[in-house]
Amino acid sequence: MSLSKKLGAEFIGTFWLVLGGCGSAVLAAAFPDVGIGLLGVSLAFGLTVLTMAYAIGHISGCHLNPAVSVGLVIGGRFSAAELGPYVLAQVLGGVAGAAVLFLIASGQPGFETAGFASNGFGEHSPGGYSLTAALICEVVMTFMFLIIILGATDERAPAALAPVAIGLGLTLIHLISIPVTNTSVNPARSTGVALFEGGWAISQLWLFWVAPIIGAALAGVVYTWLGKED
Amino acid sequence: MSLSKKLGAEFIGTFWLVLGGCGSAVLAAAFPDVGIGLLGVSLAFGLTVLTMAYAIGHISGCHLNPAVSVGLVIGGRFSAAELGPYVLAQVLGGVAGAAVLFLIASGQPGFETAGFASNGFGEHSPGGYSLTAALICEVVMTFMFLIIILGATDERAPAALAPVAIGLGLTLIHLISIPVTNTSVNPARSTGVALFEGGWAISQLWLFWVAPIIGAALAGVVYTWLGKED
Amino acid sequence: MSLSKKLGAEFIGTFWLVLGGCGSAVLAAAFPDVGIGLLGVSLAFGLTVLTMAYAIGHISGCHLNPAVSVGLVIGGRFSAAELGPYVLAQVLGGVAGAAVLFLIASGQPGFETAGFASNGFGEHSPGGYSLTAALICEVVMTFMFLIIILGATDERAPAALAPVAIGLGLTLIHLISIPVTNTSVNPARSTGVALFEGGWAISQLWLFWVAPIIGAALAGVVYTWLGKED
Amino acid sequence: MSLSKKLGAEFIGTFWLVLGGCGSAVLAAAFPDVGIGLLGVSLAFGLTVLTMAYAIGHISGCHLNPAVSVGLVIGGRFSAAELGPYVLAQVLGGVAGAAVLFLIASGQPGFETAGFASNGFGEHSPGGYSLTAALICEVVMTFMFLIIILGATDERAPAALAPVAIGLGLTLIHLISIPVTNTSVNPARSTGVALFEGGWAISQLWLFWVAPIIGAALAGVVYTWLGKED
Repeated sequence: MSLSKKLGAEFIGTFWLVLGGCGSAVLAAAFPDVGIGLLGVSLAFGLTVLTMAYAIGHISGCHLNPAVSVGLVIGGRFSAAELGPYVLAQVLGGVAGAAVLFLIASGQPGFETAGFASNGFGEHSPGGYSLTAALICEVVMTFMFLIIILGATDERAPAALAPVAIGLGLTLIHLISIPVTNTSVNPARSTGVALFEGGWAISQLWLFWVAPIIGAALAGVVYTWLGKED
Repeated sequence: MSLSKKLGAEFIGTFWLVLGGCGSAVLAAAFPDVGIGLLGVSLAFGLTVLTMAYAIGHISGCHLNPAVSVGLVIGGRFSAAELGPYVLAQVLGGVAGAAVLFLIASGQPGFETAGFASNGFGEHSPGGYSLTAALICEVVMTFMFLIIILGATDERAPAALAPVAIGLGLTLIHLISIPVTNTSVNPARSTGVALFEGGWAISQLWLFWVAPIIGAALAGVVYTWLGKED
Repeated sequence: MSLSKKLGAEFIGTFWLVLGGCGSAVLAAAFPDVGIGLLGVSLAFGLTVLTMAYAIGHISGCHLNPAVSVGLVIGGRFSAAELGPYVLAQVLGGVAGAAVLFLIASGQPGFETAGFASNGFGEHSPGGYSLTAALICEVVMTFMFLIIILGATDERAPAALAPVAIGLGLTLIHLISIPVTNTSVNPARSTGVALFEGGWAISQLWLFWVAPIIGAALAGVVYTWLGKED
Repeated sequence: MSLSKKLGAEFIGTFWLVLGGCGSAVLAAAFPDVGIGLLGVSLAFGLTVLTMAYAIGHISGCHLNPAVSVGLVIGGRFSAAELGPYVLAQVLGGVAGAAVLFLIASGQPGFETAGFASNGFGEHSPGGYSLTAALICEVVMTFMFLIIILGATDERAPAALAPVAIGLGLTLIHLISIPVTNTSVNPARSTGVALFEGGWAISQLWLFWVAPIIGAALAGVVYTWLGKED
């Protein structure tokens, strides 16, 4: 495929990840009496990736996440030359997803952003977790996310099922860690909504670029050793 | 297959989509203490499509939705000559599903339709969302639904898994948007239950024909560009 | 495989269906604060079938349900000569599953059967639904269950995914109909727990043999027409 | 693969099982208002196995559980010579997972272990179930877990879907039995968190080695008979 189509696919996919994942959190998580809760939000984030992996995996590889693109470069699965454009398309898609979510959410009387599903630590962690806990959590969760991605797309694994493993892996990561950081493992997702929340969300945004990229890079190194046939 | 068998399959499938999806909402969503909530309803809608795609996909293609049929025509995957009969079978199936649901639901003492899972906006939106928010939401959700369908049934995607992607895609769409419009993305589903609710549900029905078809048509255009090999 | 191994597989599978499905209902559905609710029970029932279909499908075909065996005979997929032994093994497995559940459940201080997940109508319907509503519901749900089974195991459908379609189809059926009859669609499941509840559960048991078998038989006829290539 | 890579994979996989499964329980199960409950924890445990089976199944076979390794030896699928090293790697991985969970969880103000997702019976059973009920439950649940594993990895079953059957099988087991013992079926998982809870968790740990291994061994014998072609 041409680069423009790959970037178009990454834009649409990351748009969907933010609109679907953060949208379920903003619109439906705490709906009175029958809200979907953190379980529903976890499922939604995972299904954005699962659905896009089947829909556009054959076009762009469906990274939808700068940390994933970095991990794939270090794991030898993706060309460093395309890293910059991919990350740009992902961030723009994330911002677009947050913008459409803002348009819809603001159509409810009495709307306030109320965090707008932004990621945070300390007093902005959903459960009040410290910066250290948040940092460890985001590094380890992204590390395991990339282990899943690199392993499930290994040529010895069944290719047709990789989107199930990866999508539900993201669901699992949210089931564990929403209380800690609201779960990022994805700098584009964090950036998209932070721009609409502003203030603290932007000043804490650095952690959600640094920690996921460290975790992803480590996984690229570890899987390169683990997965190589002797 | 002959057209009559295709239409029979579309009728049964859309019957199941409305009976199963709207049925879970009417019968089980708010059951005291252990009700399935919006998460259970979202899962139910998706599973009607997942199960039917495996059961009748090889007969009719399993559209179950006039907007899907339109999007597939514009995306070059379905013959315009069969569009009319398909839409008719879908609407009739949806009405039949709503009728059986009415028969079962009215067997409970003190039964009232109470919306009967109809789609609405403004004061009839579950969360009170405006007409504009509802319109944007239905267009965008149906757009992404068709991107998933067109992508997951692309010949480069694993055909055996397309029903998983599409069914769980519909689950995801409900996880996001039930609070906004009660989620349609499907004019046949909206029409089926609106006939039993009457009044406001019928007077707002136009939006749930117009918005899904616009979204689906746009996706047909976009995926035609995105998915074409250079 | 020899008949004895087929019957052993049907016994173990139906044992699991009742222990897992009814067990989740009895032990975990209403656990204080964090109970799994009807959504969890629906998932559990479906996963008993999904797991067994992969584990023993290649041994016995994994019917686990007298209505399914009848529907498969009428749909031309199963030999009438083996129907009797299969049904016997299924009922015995269901009773054994209920017995082990009773052993575990009675290990809690203050245990009472409290329905023991039995199926019922009228005053024994979870939501108080009438006999007529219960009858329609069980016929239609079993009809659709067999349409899913016959369709997903059609030679034109992807065989490896049939257990997903069938298992999640049973989940969907429970998401809709637990409030109406506690959901049977399976005479062996109903019989197993009714023996331990006794009284009303046994006197209402006839409906959960008659209705599922009628629904399954109808589906066998309909799919024979629908699925035949012209 | 070399033994060292197999052991590395087992270490990482069991690390993930404990961090993900027990982590969802400790961090997210009872989060105010929108907590994931026992249903979310059940899903999380299953998804740790599903994701790892796709990610490292081609490296180590993805046992992640001493009882599974024992059952596979008795079922003739795994070499007894590697049993010791596998069990060691699994226990170390489980301890490491619990340690990282402790690091993260203790970053919340007012943190107490509060059971730390340990397994127990009698007064330490979530629902107060007796030692006898706990013993029966763990034996039967592990027996069925191994039937699923041995059946779904039988050469006549579709290999690509085995991780779905096995992972969701573990979800199902948790949906049934968390109230009874907090669900072990895995001595490495029990050991990992017990070391951090201490006291009663360690004094009751014997049951969660004995019962799962008995259940797994029985399944190895039964499936050897059941699955052998005549």
